[in-house]
Amino acid sequence: MKIVVIGSGNVAYHLIKAFCNTDAILFVHARNEQALKILKQEFPSITILSTYNLAPLDADLVLISVKDDILNCVFEQYTYAPKTLVAHTSGIQIIENTSFHQNVGVFYPLQTFSRSNNVRWNSTPMLIEASVVEIEKLEQAAALLQAPYFETDVEQRKFIHLTAVLASNFVNHLLGKAATILNEHSIDYHILQPLVEATIHKAFTNHPFEVQTGPAIRSDNSTVSKHLSLLQSDNLLQKIYTDLTESIQKTSNLDTNNE
Amino acid sequence: MKIVVIGSGNVAYHLIKAFCNTDAILFVHARNEQALKILKQEFPSITILSTYNLAPLDADLVLISVKDDILNCVFEQYTYAPKTLVAHTSGIQIIENTSFHQNVGVFYPLQTFSRSNNVRWNSTPMLIEASVVEIEKLEQAAALLQAPYFETDVEQRKFIHLTAVLASNFVNHLLGKAATILNEHSIDYHILQPLVEATIHKAFTNHPFEVQTGPAIRSDNSTVSKHLSLLQSDNLLQKIYTDLTESIQKTSNLDTNNE
Repeated sequence: MKIVVIGSGNVAYHLIKAFCNTDAILFVHARNEQALKILKQEFPSITILSTYNLAPLDADLVLISVKDDILNCVFEQYTYAPKTLVAHTSGIQIIENTSFHQNVGVFYPLQTFSRSNNVRWNSTPMLIEASVVEIEKLEQAAALLQAPYFETDVEQRKFIHLTAVLASNFVNHLLGKAATILNEHSIDYHILQPLVEATIHKAFTNHPFEVQTGPAIRSDNSTVSKHLSLLQSDNLLQKIYTDLTESIQKTSNLDTNNE
Repeated sequence: MKIVVIGSGNVAYHLIKAFCNTDAILFVHARNEQALKILKQEFPSITILSTYNLAPLDADLVLISVKDDILNCVFEQYTYAPKTLVAHTSGIQIIENTSFHQNVGVFYPLQTFSRSNNVRWNSTPMLIEASVVEIEKLEQAAALLQAPYFETDVEQRKFIHLTAVLASNFVNHLLGKAATILNEHSIDYHILQPLVEATIHKAFTNHPFEVQTGPAIRSDNSTVSKHLSLLQSDNLLQKIYTDLTESIQKTSNLDTNNE
């Protein structure tokens, strides 16, 4: 399988790294020449492309993995062979103008990518979209990564992307706030790890709302105000605390027997 | 070890269940007589107490595990033997008036307790506080549960409790919102599980702020506004989304290389 990756960000990096461990033939292009050099050093088997005309490659699949706001313009810059499937890796974007190329798809890994953290592709859901004829190429690419794949539509992918922000990005930020507060009081942040792991385990073996615990759901206002006063130096987090407390209480009418 | 548990909520329930598997001699008291009957059925080895005078028992340890707002009044209702250590299981409360009993402590399991979910005590940090002389009893009780214990002070415990709300209760609520949104669009919520587990793993092998990803930290305003429009039917969650996004951006000046 001949695959072109366009981009050098964290998603592109991890895709390149993963495809290098398969028998795919890999081409890479990116604006950032320094990043390309470093990629070539780390993955000698890749071919760096300097042209915008990818048609002569006759690639099976082009994966565009760039920032969402430049995706459409990157898509339009390149010339592809007629049979090449061009897919992007974004959770939220649609290709707005496809008149100049017919075979367009989505190859969205539902995962969080940081440069120095390994990705477990075999448990990363790959959300794929393409025409019936072309979907096989995306299935094949996912299979190369040993990733489970799910055919979605634009509507579903948008909501999955939204919930990924709630369940990953926002969760990570709350953990970061917790870590910072504990560090400030000379407490090792890892003391929270068993609690957080138990929380996640419970939240995926039940509906999370059925196992909600804490002062908000107990309407324990005295604890809530004590916590708010501990957050005096962080007005924004105070606001977030208040709104999440209200949101928990609004949702809790169904369920009572938790503390 | 003679232990009295006062209370019949989820924390009390799981403490009773755990101590029943040890060689502790267990006494239980609670206001709710129906709950006591059910406890006795499930744990025949416990002795139900109907009296407020616990002095004749000469217990080593009394654990008060009741709602925070009635803790002080429950504490005062009972008569204890002079040598009995009386500890509560609250993360935030202090015993306000200790003039009537000298031996007061804290036995706070840093965990989330729902009735039907098993507790892994051997990875549950037990935060303990007592006078130097009495701390040994709490260490002994923690050891019975095979729980790791940490001596804290009031100040540390307050902040640990606050961060437990951020990292467990609020995280669970965000997961609940995600589950609800996905259910509404006929998508199995478990599709998020690998992402969430990877997020938690990363957040405890790095400082969470070093591995923050998502549209907020990329200042990807186009995605942020798309997400906000998907949340039109939930104003409160829209507000929370906006504030968490702002909070991520405020914290992000230190770190850039994530997406």
